Amino acid sequence: MANGEVKLLGTWASPFSCRVENALKLKGVKYEFIEEDLQNKSPLLLQSNPVHKKIPVLIHNGKPIAESLVIIEYIDETWDGNPILPKDPYERAVARFWAKFFDEKCLPALWKACRSTEEEKEKNVEEALGVLKILENELENKKFFGGNTSKMVVIAANFIGYWFGVIQEALGVELANAESFPALYNYMNEYVKCSHVKEHLPPREKLVGYFRARFQATSSSN
Amino acid sequence: MANGEVKLLGTWASPFSCRVENALKLKGVKYEFIEEDLQNKSPLLLQSNPVHKKIPVLIHNGKPIAESLVIIEYIDETWDGNPILPKDPYERAVARFWAKFFDEKCLPALWKACRSTEEEKEKNVEEALGVLKILENELENKKFFGGNTSKMVVIAANFIGYWFGVIQEALGVELANAESFPALYNYMNEYVKCSHVKEHLPPREKLVGYFRARFQATSSSN
Repeated sequence: MANGEVKLLGTWASPFSCRVENALKLKGVKYEFIEEDLQNKSPLLLQSNPVHKKIPVLIHNGKPIAESLVIIEYIDETWDGNPILPKDPYERAVARFWAKFFDEKCLPALWKACRSTEEEKEKNVEEALGVLKILENELENKKFFGGNTSKMVVIAANFIGYWFGVIQEALGVELANAESFPALYNYMNEYVKCSHVKEHLPPREKLVGYFRARFQATSSSN
Repeated sequence: MANGEVKLLGTWASPFSCRVENALKLKGVKYEFIEEDLQNKSPLLLQSNPVHKKIPVLIHNGKPIAESLVIIEYIDETWDGNPILPKDPYERAVARFWAKFFDEKCLPALWKACRSTEEEKEKNVEEALGVLKILENELENKKFFGGNTSKMVVIAANFIGYWFGVIQEALGVELANAESFPALYNYMNEYVKCSHVKEHLPPREKLVGYFRARFQATSSSN
């Protein structure tokens, strides 16, 4: 099947961008990666995603698609081989439910708790712990996100499985550890070994260094 | 095709619940509607959606599915006839992009602006106007949400097309009118005539009455 012209506007350190690269690589789609400078967004990005003005944007034969989860479904429906979503409608619904949960509840809560001002810290940490408890319940019941081990759920879980640990290390914070959330901690340790993602994650040390520098720059500009 | 046992936990006045009813009716699926009391949620709801504890939940042959957009895709993939999402992968991506925009940006911003405290009003109204401007741009360029007139987009737009006007009337606020957002205003007027939804919306007067009573009850309990 013809690949067509595929461009991805992203940044190497973004979990959303990496999800899309992950999906493209699993499908064996050849693409050009265009690294965006988020402090100085390119005209192509602004024109391709005028609503959100955010990465990632996939441009396939000149047509832009934004939002990482939307892009992953597009990739799955456009290129054959190596299915990302399960076939069964119920399993697909479970995969979409968890992917949505990660993005709408989990990421914002964890991010806010990691980057909280002293004033809002208690409230934000409490909210994050509530979200982590939901993940822990899922994982300790061995339900593994509703029993769904599709590539979709694994790819979408990249923030929890990988970035969250990196950001904790970069900031020197510890919201989840082996004692407080053992099943989640184990999941985070095992995540990098999963065949769906293991070759498609940016190097950990490089990522820790990136976030450390980014957070220091933000703190010193406050 | 066998319908199976289909239950929907919802409330008649919720746009999210109505989306699911809309999709079931378009497909001709027979279902039992179970009206939930959100002040006193049923054990079935809490058990079926332990993560969010929210309506709507579709229970098909005993298996629960939560989140209205996830449920609509499930309905589309499970029952034949009367497709809700378009066939073409790019058109599907556009439909999903807008449905996601409505839920993640549009609804929260409009709701916050309508129910704002005096202190936060200016900021919230400004944010809502930004979102309305995006909708206006889409509609005045006759792009109609990316050119996508699929049932998915129309059903998912029910808050903007119908509930938003109802809530403005119930509260006596006016964020969007014929002068400030003419294309959006026209869309809101035309929405109820659209064949995909027109027989599946709750009666307007009843809905206005419901929200008026609900808002009065909230104000007097503050």
